[in-house]
Order: sequence, then structure tokens, then C-alpha cells
Amino acid sequence: MDNRIRSQELRKKIMSPKEASQFIKDGMTVGTSGFTPAGYPKAVPLALADRANGGEKIKINLITGASVGEELDGELAKAGVIKRRYPYQTNNDMRNGINSGEIKFSDIHLSHMPRWIKYGFFGNIDVAVIEAVAVNVDGSIIPSTSIGCNNALVDKADKVIIEVNTSQPIELEGIHDIYDIKNPPYTQPIPLTGVEQKIGVPYIKCPLDKIAAIVVTDIKDNTRSVAPIDQDSKKMAALIVEFIVQESKKGRIPEKLLPLQSGVGSVANAILGGLEETDFQDLEIYSEVLQDSVFDLIDAGKIKFASGTSLTISPERLESFYKNLHKYREKIILRSEEISNNPEIIRRLGVIAMNTAIEFDIYGNVNSTNIQGSRMMNGIGGSGDFARNAYLSIFMTKSTAKGGDISSIVPFVKHVDHTEHDVHVVVTEQGLADLRGLSPKERAEVIIENCVHPKFKDKLRKYIESADKNSKYKHTPHNFEEAFKG
Amino acid sequence: MDNRIRSQELRKKIMSPKEASQFIKDGMTVGTSGFTPAGYPKAVPLALADRANGGEKIKINLITGASVGEELDGELAKAGVIKRRYPYQTNNDMRNGINSGEIKFSDIHLSHMPRWIKYGFFGNIDVAVIEAVAVNVDGSIIPSTSIGCNNALVDKADKVIIEVNTSQPIELEGIHDIYDIKNPPYTQPIPLTGVEQKIGVPYIKCPLDKIAAIVVTDIKDNTRSVAPIDQDSKKMAALIVEFIVQESKKGRIPEKLLPLQSGVGSVANAILGGLEETDFQDLEIYSEVLQDSVFDLIDAGKIKFASGTSLTISPERLESFYKNLHKYREKIILRSEEISNNPEIIRRLGVIAMNTAIEFDIYGNVNSTNIQGSRMMNGIGGSGDFARNAYLSIFMTKSTAKGGDISSIVPFVKHVDHTEHDVHVVVTEQGLADLRGLSPKERAEVIIENCVHPKFKDKLRKYIESADKNSKYKHTPHNFEEAFKG
Repeated sequence: MDNRIRSQELRKKIMSPKEASQFIKDGMTVGTSGFTPAGYPKAVPLALADRANGGEKIKINLITGASVGEELDGELAKAGVIKRRYPYQTNNDMRNGINSGEIKFSDIHLSHMPRWIKYGFFGNIDVAVIEAVAVNVDGSIIPSTSIGCNNALVDKADKVIIEVNTSQPIELEGIHDIYDIKNPPYTQPIPLTGVEQKIGVPYIKCPLDKIAAIVVTDIKDNTRSVAPIDQDSKKMAALIVEFIVQESKKGRIPEKLLPLQSGVGSVANAILGGLEETDFQDLEIYSEVLQDSVFDLIDAGKIKFASGTSLTISPERLESFYKNLHKYREKIILRSEEISNNPEIIRRLGVIAMNTAIEFDIYGNVNSTNIQGSRMMNGIGGSGDFARNAYLSIFMTKSTAKGGDISSIVPFVKHVDHTEHDVHVVVTEQGLADLRGLSPKERAEVIIENCVHPKFKDKLRKYIESADKNSKYKHTPHNFEEAFKG
Repeated sequence: MDNRIRSQELRKKIMSPKEASQFIKDGMTVGTSGFTPAGYPKAVPLALADRANGGEKIKINLITGASVGEELDGELAKAGVIKRRYPYQTNNDMRNGINSGEIKFSDIHLSHMPRWIKYGFFGNIDVAVIEAVAVNVDGSIIPSTSIGCNNALVDKADKVIIEVNTSQPIELEGIHDIYDIKNPPYTQPIPLTGVEQKIGVPYIKCPLDKIAAIVVTDIKDNTRSVAPIDQDSKKMAALIVEFIVQESKKGRIPEKLLPLQSGVGSVANAILGGLEETDFQDLEIYSEVLQDSVFDLIDAGKIKFASGTSLTISPERLESFYKNLHKYREKIILRSEEISNNPEIIRRLGVIAMNTAIEFDIYGNVNSTNIQGSRMMNGIGGSGDFARNAYLSIFMTKSTAKGGDISSIVPFVKHVDHTEHDVHVVVTEQGLADLRGLSPKERAEVIIENCVHPKFKDKLRKYIESADKNSKYKHTPHNFEEAFKG
């Protein structure tokens, strides 16, 4: 334990998860580490769930970096512990609680989270629970596989519980870069001008007297296997890669490709795979989550550097990841989400953003959160931070859903997360539509022509023809009763 | 002319508006100065309209900083010269052309404009027409009452036509601050950390050989009178001022008030007027348009500094403005919209943003552009740049429209410009709703309770009750057929 908990004084604070969980009381606001199922606390949440399952009345507001794993979101949701949840989740039980109306969920841009915590918009943060690979003599914390809001939470929380996770290799030390942004009016320019640049320190500052408890655990990050890449995803990826190649040839993207952001999942993996086949060299990733595909590209010698706030390795790849960590650590950096998702940096670097939509409409508005307008899927996450500030903002979805029964391109999306102003390019397996500079009606034309599945083209063409004929105002013609019929 | 056109070489380029207009040909993309009816070219557009009215076939794509005056948008729209229009307008004839479907309008965030010009997303810029108070020996241009996209347009255009406007006082020289942002991957942090800080030069660089023509004119900015502040606007302003005071008392806004942005119009004026009555001292404005009310506050000794990209003085106040220009110029600065609307700066300074909505919905989504979803009003302008990055993002509208016949708060807005993720506070003359951290259903409750006109409260309450009862998914309950009925 000496290289994990680095002073005798600190080791005195070691206690059981159950004992540590006692610092969390009914009505409190608790902030935790975690971003994707990586780097979130496990033992203390499980102990908290045990208390609730044993009959104790306890409800908390839960703030995290983004989604977290089953031991935190799943167990606490099932135990009925969560009153409010911010800002994003991907867990089945949490999602069910939100959609049943039991859990109050507020869906917030990830780049807004650290600021809101620091501005006091969430009120007092009673306890922060942070997973770490180690704690330094002065109390400063070496995070594990994600950073998220850790630094803001530790700064604002009354008490800090540290989960030292021995399943996370100590060799992760040094891949983190923590830079604190001061609140206005004291905010200064963030000095980051390159994906690989270090601007902070490799630990989170934490006063010793804030550390209420240290818990030792070895529960692994509960990551998922990477889904195999299906044909549709391959088509979308190929369309995007070809578009980027053409834009570069036209001189509208610099010859040396700009940094890439991509969401999580199989299309994202397919795009990175597709870029492996191009002439682009020395690719840079400026994103949130570094997944398997990034390390495949590092192995292929294609990646110059990758920056994220989370490291999510599938169980299948974990062993080879650990074996090559000494090599990978020269090529990757983890930052707080205050930096990874910061508009200032995304604009400055000129990131090319690629994110997934649930549906989009003929005028280019994107729904990425609410199925049929009412059913929360995951949340907006960082997609808005990137799309809104990207050099190029690309959204993709399969052209149909429900086994081909419904079109993913509709007259009017039932929830808007990204407005027509923020969507440059949309892609389905049918094709790609470049919307830049087009009027709404031109957008509808090219979207229907290029992206809609053949069996829904006529219906959408008729919608816009009829709306255009019957509307006195022809900028964005609509017939809302028709659009939402049935 | 010697102090306006500062070399013999340049004076050789003086020609009539008609002659200068010949550089503009059918099919060209033309970028002009102008932001609000301030600082836009007048003589050359009038000559161009004359050509079209005389039977010449000429259509152009028009790019401006934002809205412009009658001589440009109005006359060219009426003459049928405009094929495409970017990014914002407030002119009746232009609006009619857009809504009849004749003019293709693309509604773009103002902060995106300079980047898109520089990235080549609009294609080649054939001619830039820039209003100036003077031209230096080396060709560099001293703009007049606005900057907008001037620097990006001059940089990218093949040819530049300068309208030296002698109705604009030469004393404007020195109030401009032009800082050029390099394209990725060469972009650097913008060194601006204070509203009053100068980071650039007081002129727009322009190679001498780019200057195709210089036209001398004395046509005044076609500004409008300020509408008197009505009772509803006064109520909204009072609610916002009181909210800001309370937030400051709670320590959620720094004691020294953060810089303010407010849209154009009578509520904005009323808010600034209301702040005059508070204990806040040394107010700072970081906005787009500096209007009469800013100068009233300077006169009252309340303003420390005001930064904008445009100076729109009503005809009634113009004389006193010119008389006191020597005093005002110590307190104001004009920047390019690349800086005034830049997310990097808006976040860093912690701007409090106050913008007007056409309608908003019970879940906090805002429509600020399309009346009834199809009829373009003006455009999103800079509201999204500010709302999305503000320390606090406030939207306001009167609770009813059409003389009280319809509610401005609806189940689902017919066009989304600002999503639920970007709207912190909504205000009507009925009251204010603080939406931060609330779930969608909680937002609906507080919006209906505080902001909706009494005669529409029951209907909206019934809508959400019935939607909640009939929807399996209760995160954002909707009944779309009901929402868009009739």
C-alpha cells in the first residue's frame, strides 16, 4: 500500500466501504468521479446501496462526470437512492427510473458541469467520492481511468472519500493533466494550443483535512465489449472518410488533418478504422473517450497523439492494453472535462466532430436524446460542446429504425438537441448531405435525396411539397398537424 | 479629403458609386460591412440597385456582419438582386423576399461567420464593400460605426471597394480594435481578459492592390428611433434586475457585477435603466450593439466600459452623441464580431446574457427566429453565441402575442433556436422562472406557475397532466397531436 497511499497519516484514514459510506446521509448532494464506465467509485456506492436495501431511508442528488458503471448508477437506482441525477447516464436501471418519473434528471452539456459546480448552481456539494490509483503525502489524488469533473468536485466538496482501486495499474500515474480554471472575473486564457501539450499537473489538489476516508478496493471498471461493426456503420464511416478526403483536396480542411472527436460506438470505431486506410498521417484525437480503436491506430503507427477525459478499454483488449501501457502513455493524455469539452479549445484546435443522432429532420435539426420526444435515452453529453464549436460538425444515424419500420429522417424532430445552426453535415448508410450555406428548403432537398431510405423518400417529398403549397411563408414550410400525425 | 483618403495614390482610385458598382457582376459573392443599421455601405448598393432597376440581369450572394440598413438590404431586395443572403437581417423587403421563397436565406450564428469566410465555406468572396471613415497611406481601413466581419471579408475578398463616409465623424478613429485570429492549426489563445482591453490595431489591414475603388459619400446611417418602454417591458426588466441582485446576495454572481450582454430593443434598454437604480457600480457591457441606453448610463456615471461591434445611435440622440464623442470614446471599444461574439471570450469574462424570444415552451426550449415555425423574422444573430456560453443565460418575451389572443408559452415551440440545455432563466411580464438544475417536468411547473398569462395556465396544466397520464415515458411527457392541434 505504500506506493498507493503515500503516508502513514493517510493510511490511518483507511476504513471499510460501509464505514466510509456513513459520511453520505439522506438529502445530501454527492459528486463522484467517473466518465463512461471508467474511473467511477464502486465500493462505497455498493455499500450505500446495501444500506438502502437494508431498509434505511436515504435519497441523494448524484453528480458525475458523465455516465458511470453498474455498481454506481445501476445499484443506486435499483435501491431507490437517487432523487436527482446530473448530467448524463447510460445505465438501464437509471434510465428506467428517469423515464418512470421517479428520478429527476437534468440533461446538461458536459462542458457546463464543472462551471456550474464551481459557480454554486448545484448548491453545496456535501461529499465527493473519487476513484484513485494513489494518494500523495499532501493529499493530492492521482485519478484512475477518467477525470471528468473530479477537480471541480474535490475543490467544492465539504468532504472527500477516496477509493484507491488496486485493479487500476499504478502506471496510469503521469497520463493525467489537471489545469484549474478560475471563476470569472479571474479567468485567464487556457494556454493549450496542441493536442499533446501538458498545461497542468498530474494530480488533483486536495487539502489533507478534506479527506474523510480512504477505501481500498479492487473492483474492475465494468466496461463493455465493443460491438462488431455492421455493414451500415461501415458505409457511414466510408462516406465520412471520403468526405474528409475530398474537403482536404478542396483546401477547405488543412492538408495536415485537424484533430478528430468522435462519439462512442461502432461507427466511431469504423471511422477511425477507415482513416487508417487513407494517406493521412500523424492523426490527432481530441475527444472525450479513448476507446479500443484509438489504441489499434496507435499500434498501426497512425496516431500522433490522443487527448480525452476517459479511457474505456473493452475486457477483450485490457490485457494487451496493460502490457503496452508503457508505449501508449507516450501517446495519450487525460484532461478534466472542463478542458476536453471546452469551446475555447475545441474552436482553437479546429476539431472535426462526429456524433450520433437518434433522428434528424429534413431541415437539419437533430434529436440525440429523447426517443419519440419523451423517452430519455442517455443525454446530450458532450455532443453539443463539440458540434457547436467544431470546424466541421457531422451527425450520423441509420436511415431507418425499428427494423426498418420508421424513418430516422422526419419532418420535425420530436426533441431538438442540436439546431439547424449547428449541424454542417448529416450522414446515413444511404449517403451524405453537406448542409453548409443552404437555405432550409435546399437542405430538405439534399437530405431527402441523399440520406433518406428509398421507401420513405416519396412520403417526405410529398410532405414538403404540400407544406410549401399550403403555407403563406416559404422559408421553412411546415404542416405541423401532418408532421405529428399518428 | 486629405485626412480621409490619406495619399495621392489612393485618391486616384476615387470614382462614382456607379463606376465602382461595375466591379460587382452577376453571380458574384459580395461581402459588406454593417452590423445593425450602422456602418454599412450605402452609395454602391444604391448604384447596384439602379443597374438592376434599369433592366440589367444581376443576382448576387450577399454576406454581411448582421442586419444592415434600407439602402443595402431594402433596395437590393426590392430590385431583385439578392440570390442568397447570410447570416441575419431585419429589413422588411428582405424578409418578404425570404418568406416568399425568392431569396435563399441561411441563418447562421454570428460567431461562425468570420470562421466560415476564412475557412472558404462560402466559396470565393469576389468583392468586399466596406464603409470607412478614412483610408491610410498603406491601404489600411478605419471602419465607421460597426466592424462585423470586415476584417475577414477584406482578408478573403479578391477586390475591395471602400465607401468613405463623410457623415461619420473622423473622431471615430481609435475606438476600433482589430485582432485577427489565425485559422487552425495556427490559432492562438485570444489574449483578451478584460472588457476594456485593447489587443489589436485600430484599422483593418488591406493591401493597396486589393483596393479597386474608393467612393465618397455622406449618406447617414439609417437608424431608427428608440421605441418608448412599455409597461410590460418595465416589468420584465424589473424582474431581471431583482433576480440579478438576489443572485449576487446569494454569492452565485460575484459582488462586482459580471459584464452584461443584452439584445436590441426596449426591454434591453429598460434593464440597463433598471440597473442604474441599483447599488451596482462600474457596470461593464460586453455585447454586440451599443445603443442609446449605454450612453445614458455613461452619462449617469454608472458604466466603467462598454465593448461591442456596432454603435447604433437613434436620430434623436445623434447630436448629443457627437458632441460628447470625446468623452464617450474613453469608455467604449468596437471589436470584430469574431471577438465580440467569441465563445472563448464570453465564457472567460462570464457574461450575463439577456435575449428576446418569440416564444418558449413549457420545457424551456426557445424559438427566436420563426413565427409559427415557417415565417422567418430576423434570424438567430448572436443570441446563441451568448446564451450558450454565458455565465447566466436569460430569455424574455411577453406572455401573450397577437393582442393577447395567443400564449407565448406553448407545449412545444414550432422552431428551436435555443435548446433546453442552453436556457437558464425565462421571464415574462408575469414573472421569472429559474430553470437551472430542474427536471423537464419541474421546469414546466415553474414556467406555468410564474410566466404564463393567467388565462392560459389551465390549458397548459391540462396539457401536461394529460400527456403525463397517457405517456409511458414520463421524462418529457408530450402529446404531439394535441400540442400542434389547430
